[in-house]
Amino acid sequence: MKFEDYKPTGKISNKHMLTLMDYSTEEIFELLACAVELKRKQYAREKHDYLAGKTLAMIFEKSSTRTRISFEQGIRQLGGYPMFLSSRDIQLGRGEPIRDTVRVMERMNIDGIMIRTYKQTDLEELARYGHIPVINGLTDDFHPCQVLADLLTVYEEFGTFEGKKLVFFGEGFNMANSLMLGCAKVGMDVCICAPEGFAPRADVVEEARKSAHNGAKVVVTSDIEEAIAGANAVYTDVFFSMGQDKDPAKEAALMPMQVNAAMMKKAATDAIFLHCLPAHRGEEVTDEVMEGAQSRIFPEAENRLHAQKAVMYMLMKDN
Amino acid sequence: MKFEDYKPTGKISNKHMLTLMDYSTEEIFELLACAVELKRKQYAREKHDYLAGKTLAMIFEKSSTRTRISFEQGIRQLGGYPMFLSSRDIQLGRGEPIRDTVRVMERMNIDGIMIRTYKQTDLEELARYGHIPVINGLTDDFHPCQVLADLLTVYEEFGTFEGKKLVFFGEGFNMANSLMLGCAKVGMDVCICAPEGFAPRADVVEEARKSAHNGAKVVVTSDIEEAIAGANAVYTDVFFSMGQDKDPAKEAALMPMQVNAAMMKKAATDAIFLHCLPAHRGEEVTDEVMEGAQSRIFPEAENRLHAQKAVMYMLMKDN
Amino acid sequence: MKFEDYKPTGKISNKHMLTLMDYSTEEIFELLACAVELKRKQYAREKHDYLAGKTLAMIFEKSSTRTRISFEQGIRQLGGYPMFLSSRDIQLGRGEPIRDTVRVMERMNIDGIMIRTYKQTDLEELARYGHIPVINGLTDDFHPCQVLADLLTVYEEFGTFEGKKLVFFGEGFNMANSLMLGCAKVGMDVCICAPEGFAPRADVVEEARKSAHNGAKVVVTSDIEEAIAGANAVYTDVFFSMGQDKDPAKEAALMPMQVNAAMMKKAATDAIFLHCLPAHRGEEVTDEVMEGAQSRIFPEAENRLHAQKAVMYMLMKDN
Repeated sequence: MKFEDYKPTGKISNKHMLTLMDYSTEEIFELLACAVELKRKQYAREKHDYLAGKTLAMIFEKSSTRTRISFEQGIRQLGGYPMFLSSRDIQLGRGEPIRDTVRVMERMNIDGIMIRTYKQTDLEELARYGHIPVINGLTDDFHPCQVLADLLTVYEEFGTFEGKKLVFFGEGFNMANSLMLGCAKVGMDVCICAPEGFAPRADVVEEARKSAHNGAKVVVTSDIEEAIAGANAVYTDVFFSMGQDKDPAKEAALMPMQVNAAMMKKAATDAIFLHCLPAHRGEEVTDEVMEGAQSRIFPEAENRLHAQKAVMYMLMKDN
Repeated sequence: MKFEDYKPTGKISNKHMLTLMDYSTEEIFELLACAVELKRKQYAREKHDYLAGKTLAMIFEKSSTRTRISFEQGIRQLGGYPMFLSSRDIQLGRGEPIRDTVRVMERMNIDGIMIRTYKQTDLEELARYGHIPVINGLTDDFHPCQVLADLLTVYEEFGTFEGKKLVFFGEGFNMANSLMLGCAKVGMDVCICAPEGFAPRADVVEEARKSAHNGAKVVVTSDIEEAIAGANAVYTDVFFSMGQDKDPAKEAALMPMQVNAAMMKKAATDAIFLHCLPAHRGEEVTDEVMEGAQSRIFPEAENRLHAQKAVMYMLMKDN
Repeated sequence: MKFEDYKPTGKISNKHMLTLMDYSTEEIFELLACAVELKRKQYAREKHDYLAGKTLAMIFEKSSTRTRISFEQGIRQLGGYPMFLSSRDIQLGRGEPIRDTVRVMERMNIDGIMIRTYKQTDLEELARYGHIPVINGLTDDFHPCQVLADLLTVYEEFGTFEGKKLVFFGEGFNMANSLMLGCAKVGMDVCICAPEGFAPRADVVEEARKSAHNGAKVVVTSDIEEAIAGANAVYTDVFFSMGQDKDPAKEAALMPMQVNAAMMKKAATDAIFLHCLPAHRGEEVTDEVMEGAQSRIFPEAENRLHAQKAVMYMLMKDN
């Protein structure tokens, strides 16, 4: 089945959004279909306050412009209340065990938790000890909400995932992991082009291959020419994430993968450029590409809002 | 008069909630009765937005999970607006005198101030120079809102305060001070078991004894066996508060008072375990007791919400 | 034309509030008239939720009691939503270029940006790359919203700007710059009394003189006696702004300009004292003057709320 033929059911069986590892093709289609519909309602100014009276705790162990604004606006547009808790306001896993914090939160009528942190295991602990949905707003391992926004952007551009290819240039870190899973599961070819020694986690590659929809290909390579050939979406991310030390050897290995005008010329003629932002112009991407006609970075950023509204709606609504 | 026979009047004469020193038995009964009713309404999903249009400034000089979430949810459930001001956003008593800050706040339609800080005198200054209610969300001296939640939890368990005894193991600091006052004033026996040199403030002990309701006994001792005997509620707190230095001598003096399974066996057979949280398992309490059948720590945490809604309602409503 | 004869049109042509340099006499009159009307509605408890559904991003690179509370209460009273973003939550101009941040913000339904920061050029960049109104909540160069509040306070006191004189004692920094512009443009004489070497920017003095309404005089001097003579409003500010180093030479040059009882006696008999707060008693002003009968510092602080509601309303309303 193709996404464009998918009929929404209004249901997913997952209780949390920790990683797309846990999500089937149908569940991802369901979320994307919901995002399309919520975006339509937003533009049409149709009321959609389905989460009125509900509170989303937003826990940030790392700061973030996009994740903060998109979740805060999203829960509000759905009629709910955002409670912003920075790592300065709540010391998750330090002052007290996570299992105590989450049990207190649900006692105080918190209906969902969005968390941006480092360790995936912290999310798993929140999910294990609480009864409320936990949404991954970025960990060192995964960034599923970003990938849902990316997929929405690809679909809006091409009207299908069938026969399309996304290439990611960069380290096998959270974005590479989640893109592999997301693309494979919706039936789009995906290629992670990473320098030797920076490939994504083997178990994630295996899960992506195992769950690939409609024969989508999952390729991990360090061969730039192979990677860019035929790509309809060219994706990259900063060389060093917040909190990572600058490593000159890593930078040198990544520089040849810079997405510049020459690189974009080698992609498919209809190729678009994507970036989860923030971008470091002159490093992983040039200003020319960022600001060029093929760039879809701002619609992509906006789609964070719509994709995450879908995730919150599906996980936090009453059943 | 017993609390279970108390008829609410809808009124208290206090303007602030700085400490239970200032509160009479009737006023504490009034707050508890209000908390019971607001909790009932919350569970019944009955509208209770009595503070619609009102703003609570929430000033945090120390971070806190429970106080933050409970006040923020509480004022919202009452229809009001929480304005969260951390010590990074407002430099109370540093950038400018407290008497200026509070006069500006009331000019800008702030209807109440909840503050978590160190010095009780800061609260007193806010109360002296402003015309708006000031609520103590924890100081080094007192934690009245926590004790109201504790009393509510005891009442829910036993249906009365009469003939019940609460024992607190730990330093004579804010929790010991406020528990003594709260228990004595509602007519429950209270015993503070603190090592030599760590007894609570003499003036607070005296006020507790002087205002003890229905002959409630107020005991301060370092004798663990005397303290635990017949206790219906066993309470402890971390050895070192946020900002306090670790003192090995103090730790050694407190360790024999650890609330563990053996200690709980010495209490009354119907005894419950209480803790204001966060807890340090293996120090003042064991994991076994925290997670055991006698533990009421999560209902107790939830009661912060209901007790504080009562405080805000009684102090901030129009007359 | 005098302000008291001004007929509001409901329109201004400016899209942003970066500095009063960009504002004509008519536009400032329009904002002040709007502030008067919104203040009346607030006191009469008349509904005025003209910005319902709109979001104001509040970016603070420096902390502030007054700016924070007044904008947050203001947008809420207008029915909109305040999104508080401290420099810890969003790294404007550091993590990514300002031009990217503002384009993401407008994609995520932010309807206006209020920013307190250091560099005026940061505001200009926000305004240049975005399509949403940018409001200056204080920079090193200007503080236009404060001056609108000051003018409102002067008008409430005297019923006119005609024939009135305001003197500012202190460094030629943001307050001096904005007071010169504001006073001159509404037709009030203004005198900046600054020590040698601390005069305001020449281009701002020139703009103030060029755009002075009804022959208002703009004087810059270091002569204290000349400055205070005939002043109806006496204004000062802290010697050192947040982030500025203490400079003993500067302090020594400013101390003779301290506003104390003796200084107030030299002003007009009906003179009022103004201060943007926070104040350092014993430095730029004495406690006696701050708390004295001529002081209007708290009405002035309150007028931040009303003046800024006018700015938000005029810039953020639908046309």
